[in-house]
Amino acid sequence: MKPAVILLSGGMDSCVAAALAVQAGYELALLHINYGQRTQNRELSAFNDIAGYYGVKNRLIADIAYLKEIGCSSLTDHSISVRDGGVNKESVPSTYVPFRNGNMLSIAVSWAEVIGSGKVYIGAVEGDSSGYPDCTKVFYEKFNALLSVGLPAGKTISVETPLIDMKKSEIARLGIELKAPLMLTWSCYQSESIACGVCDSCRLRLKAFCDINETDPIRYI
Amino acid sequence: MKPAVILLSGGMDSCVAAALAVQAGYELALLHINYGQRTQNRELSAFNDIAGYYGVKNRLIADIAYLKEIGCSSLTDHSISVRDGGVNKESVPSTYVPFRNGNMLSIAVSWAEVIGSGKVYIGAVEGDSSGYPDCTKVFYEKFNALLSVGLPAGKTISVETPLIDMKKSEIARLGIELKAPLMLTWSCYQSESIACGVCDSCRLRLKAFCDINETDPIRYI
Repeated sequence: MKPAVILLSGGMDSCVAAALAVQAGYELALLHINYGQRTQNRELSAFNDIAGYYGVKNRLIADIAYLKEIGCSSLTDHSISVRDGGVNKESVPSTYVPFRNGNMLSIAVSWAEVIGSGKVYIGAVEGDSSGYPDCTKVFYEKFNALLSVGLPAGKTISVETPLIDMKKSEIARLGIELKAPLMLTWSCYQSESIACGVCDSCRLRLKAFCDINETDPIRYI
Repeated sequence: MKPAVILLSGGMDSCVAAALAVQAGYELALLHINYGQRTQNRELSAFNDIAGYYGVKNRLIADIAYLKEIGCSSLTDHSISVRDGGVNKESVPSTYVPFRNGNMLSIAVSWAEVIGSGKVYIGAVEGDSSGYPDCTKVFYEKFNALLSVGLPAGKTISVETPLIDMKKSEIARLGIELKAPLMLTWSCYQSESIACGVCDSCRLRLKAFCDINETDPIRYI
């Protein structure tokens, strides 16, 4: 089996991306990144739970605390409030972490090069999401163009974004169909015990399950 | 004065890149990255010396130890020998660190976004260098294409590679002309006390000074 590097935050989307890589016949190499976000410990726990569910030993946990030091995001700076007023497409939300996905993809590519993987999966969603500039289809197209010139001769790696055009409800439906362990995932931006239900991430997730008449298997306040 | 983020390893090339940013009228914001390389402490010391020379307080030191964990480079894995047989353009040298410059540029962009800088300087050299795939002109063109779509609306950041087409001897000449503190720089891949004079990096540097009939101001064994 060929390995694929999966950027696995511990959230629903990356969990479904992992399930799709399994379905496509890849051996999972799971990458988790701590960047000083509010729910860092809870996300790492979700990552390890999901890795355990799939029986994956090949795990890498990368610490990039510099993103917290750089700051300017409510996810890494506790003096900025995580907006709980609903998703507003007109501006970049406070939870945006500057160029985070550029950093994360670069780590994934470094690892993929070394373990001989030709694929990096990321569960990015463009339309039905929070409006981050590094979650768009064109961003990943340009990143793949960078990879087409930036690797040693003979190496080919491409980033796969299987969820990029999907609605959140379609992702939840797909996760259920693929028997992805959604009960082990964590999406809340601000709580580490019971999901708050009001941050953007909780709202999007709850609406997704509601839209398909299913019950989200995790607990909310 | 507008700030420019300079990727300052502590070597000769990045020092000259910093000198060019000063000449272009930018306020320096100096970024250094520890990635578990052999001469990490010595390079950090050179970084701080150069920052002191230019009177720069705005410094960021980012630790990305995961590159050492990922390994596969003689710079981060002490069980692999740093080649000392001269530069060979036919293969990627053992000192290549997988996708290092993708990682470093991403950190620089995250910081540039937050401090309101529109420029990232990197002292990459294509022709007269070790043959790394992430040091080519086309790599930086594609990275800039990524930035053109991956930032929040209204933000513009571009990577500047003022040395990319230069010969190493031209860089040394330029550094002397710009009064860049070359005596404070560190290039050796394997020693932290006195430069070895035989690794690829030392050889390229010594040849550069020799070509212009100047004496390298640092000591060699």
